[in-house]
Amino acid sequence: MAIHPIDVIRHKRDGLVLSDAEIEGFVHAMVERQGPADAPTDAQIAALLMAIFLRGLDARELAALTQAMRFSGETLDTSSLGAFAVDKHSTGGVGDNTSLLIAPMVAAAGAMPGGVRLCDPMISGRSLGHTGGTLDKLETIPGFRTQLGLDEFLAIVRECGFAMAGQTPALVPADRILYALRDHTGTVESPYLITASIMSKKLAAGLNGLVLDVKTGSGAFMAKLEDAQLLARLMVETGERAGTRTVALLTSMDQPLGRHAGNWVEVMECVKIFQHFAPECEFSLEAEKVRLSADLIELACALAGWMIYLGGRAATPEAGAKVAMGTLRDGSAYERFLRMVRMQSEDVAGAMAALAEPEAFHRPGATRVVRAERAGYLVEMDCTQVGWAVQRLGAGRARPGDAVSANAGIEMHVKLGDAVEVGQAVVTLFSEDEGLLAEPEEMVRETLRIAEEKPEPEPLIREVIAGGRG
Amino acid sequence: MAIHPIDVIRHKRDGLVLSDAEIEGFVHAMVERQGPADAPTDAQIAALLMAIFLRGLDARELAALTQAMRFSGETLDTSSLGAFAVDKHSTGGVGDNTSLLIAPMVAAAGAMPGGVRLCDPMISGRSLGHTGGTLDKLETIPGFRTQLGLDEFLAIVRECGFAMAGQTPALVPADRILYALRDHTGTVESPYLITASIMSKKLAAGLNGLVLDVKTGSGAFMAKLEDAQLLARLMVETGERAGTRTVALLTSMDQPLGRHAGNWVEVMECVKIFQHFAPECEFSLEAEKVRLSADLIELACALAGWMIYLGGRAATPEAGAKVAMGTLRDGSAYERFLRMVRMQSEDVAGAMAALAEPEAFHRPGATRVVRAERAGYLVEMDCTQVGWAVQRLGAGRARPGDAVSANAGIEMHVKLGDAVEVGQAVVTLFSEDEGLLAEPEEMVRETLRIAEEKPEPEPLIREVIAGGRG
Repeated sequence: MAIHPIDVIRHKRDGLVLSDAEIEGFVHAMVERQGPADAPTDAQIAALLMAIFLRGLDARELAALTQAMRFSGETLDTSSLGAFAVDKHSTGGVGDNTSLLIAPMVAAAGAMPGGVRLCDPMISGRSLGHTGGTLDKLETIPGFRTQLGLDEFLAIVRECGFAMAGQTPALVPADRILYALRDHTGTVESPYLITASIMSKKLAAGLNGLVLDVKTGSGAFMAKLEDAQLLARLMVETGERAGTRTVALLTSMDQPLGRHAGNWVEVMECVKIFQHFAPECEFSLEAEKVRLSADLIELACALAGWMIYLGGRAATPEAGAKVAMGTLRDGSAYERFLRMVRMQSEDVAGAMAALAEPEAFHRPGATRVVRAERAGYLVEMDCTQVGWAVQRLGAGRARPGDAVSANAGIEMHVKLGDAVEVGQAVVTLFSEDEGLLAEPEEMVRETLRIAEEKPEPEPLIREVIAGGRG
Repeated sequence: MAIHPIDVIRHKRDGLVLSDAEIEGFVHAMVERQGPADAPTDAQIAALLMAIFLRGLDARELAALTQAMRFSGETLDTSSLGAFAVDKHSTGGVGDNTSLLIAPMVAAAGAMPGGVRLCDPMISGRSLGHTGGTLDKLETIPGFRTQLGLDEFLAIVRECGFAMAGQTPALVPADRILYALRDHTGTVESPYLITASIMSKKLAAGLNGLVLDVKTGSGAFMAKLEDAQLLARLMVETGERAGTRTVALLTSMDQPLGRHAGNWVEVMECVKIFQHFAPECEFSLEAEKVRLSADLIELACALAGWMIYLGGRAATPEAGAKVAMGTLRDGSAYERFLRMVRMQSEDVAGAMAALAEPEAFHRPGATRVVRAERAGYLVEMDCTQVGWAVQRLGAGRARPGDAVSANAGIEMHVKLGDAVEVGQAVVTLFSEDEGLLAEPEEMVRETLRIAEEKPEPEPLIREVIAGGRG
């Protein structure tokens, strides 16, 4: 039976529930621009997107849309790896470099003797707006390649237990069509369309398990807790319906995660953490710097712990977090990280030299220190504004395709709840040249709020939303 | 200040009220595809249409959209005519040929000595779906031209008191862009978008007054009374806000209006009515045929009565209806009709011969009689289905641009509430050839419901919705 785009639009417009055949027919015809149904025009796709934006989708419709998009192009076949494929996805944060820690930790944990093997085929994104992107960070490593064919990507996963690369054009073409239209028709901010976009891409990587880090707070796209909860529930249910064990952690994004935000500075922060804990590295971070990275380490271990638990290598998520921490302490996570970089870099000697002494590499052309204007406690900041300041320093892009600066970014010397003296350094800004510092300095300065009373500490992990089998 | 299409879409999507500047900027840029604002893409227009479909427009937004569309191209300047320009518009009916009676009646009434002159610059449409179109009917008159330039159109209005022609490409280009997109994005059936489409075209004709015939019942696009009431209220308020005295009559479309539905047969029915009443024509319709046309005559006089009243040529709409009837009885309406045909036909001799003896012209190639299968009263029919039967006979078109048959149509021998005997002729079908009769015959037969009890007669005019000044 032919599916006519206008009937699908009308049904959603009128609040009816679309059948799987309608959803699959529409997506298929959209990608093929031929096939068993009429090919929808851009105007018809836009009309359906707006109808979905305003009418929503029920759980079955959302699962059908996600699956139709997932299978709209090539998919990654992880079945030949003989491992439980598990990944994590974050909805976008500031200074969030957990991926660089988590993937090697999970790969290391999954390679321990006994039990099912784990692997993390991690397909990542770029910086967008005020949030950073894993690909932009990785590309500051000399010679690092983020565009891999599916075969090479799988070969690296097989060898390292993980690989980190960008989306290929062959994966989920339906999402590219829909995203381009959403972007200019005011239909980006729908939790249903966000879920279908994220989950179709993640599920196309052939995952057995998925842990979602849904950000909430002043630096999150979904600042309100209830919006983040809805998105998390939709994504978890959609993953479970697709047969992937899925769990979401709602986590705080009220300040940049860890000590740094930027590109190379975040790689550096992770490498320093690896080196601090790994017994074979004769290096110790100062205790104060470990403390400033503590939230990053805690979140990375918690997320990795859930991944290890979903894969059956720990009895509880908490036990999984301990296993993850163990891979830092025994150096196995760092070994996995270096193994991956050797396979993905075209300049292995350069990459290894840069990672061995990261402060000497990508040195900023200009720095400026933002100091406390009064004594008290750092109680609040608009983390989105801090993220925009990092972007303006050169670490992010104003529009897709813009180049980003490797050496731009910030270092936090103080975290929320810490006491400060007048004139104490709170944040240092880095950029390629002096002229880029003034506006970000002002943006950071005006958003830091120092008050007399020490605030109650907020938990980093606000809530866990697990599927029926979670 | 530049208007960005995506901001307009987002505001309507979120249920905000759009400013006049936003609406004007969007429509202007859409028509110009340049100008002070970004030019919206088809996808953006479609997204806004769906947002309007689902969110609606308030009275001020609807007036602003209508005015922006009205002034998107050329407009008719009726001020030089020295007359009160008044028109009527119907939302689409079956067998509705009131326009052919009304325009000459109003022109004749408006040319009587004393008082302000009236004129009716009537821009009409074509058959659509199950409903007929005035242009298709007029074009069955030999040599009749419905495509007139604005100057010639005004010259004919000046000479005859009215003219009847189709939309020109220069009038209301915004409606053509929007209608083409609405048609394939499932956004046709919005009372707000219907109002803006109808009213922008009507108001572009420079009207001082407008009478709307909003159909309700089984043959209407808006079958439900409350939908028709909403549409009528929106159109009246939009007309009044534009400075045009506007009134809407909600009228019954539960059966074809008058005795005929089709193209030439409807012209014939009107000509017979003109000839029956005009003293100089030595012709009388049989009383039974006058009775079968009674609802058509009643509605035409009621609508013309409102037009005459709005123009100040009668103290009440009822008095106006008497004036309208007077123009039938004194032959002045028929004289106006023939004067218009002489100016609009390129074959005046042929046209006059056809009108003098209409039964001899466009004779159908095949006829079939649908007879009553039981005795009783005709209590009900699905008038939309009867309209589709007329279309299938060849009188309407399956898609825009298709040719229509001049001689296809139906004749009603019985109206709702009439008693019938077994085997009595109820409807006669006409078409160009025998092969086109079977399906329409079945469609008509199965929808006629004959029952034992005589039904209560329904009023033809259900309700009058007048503006604040109506």
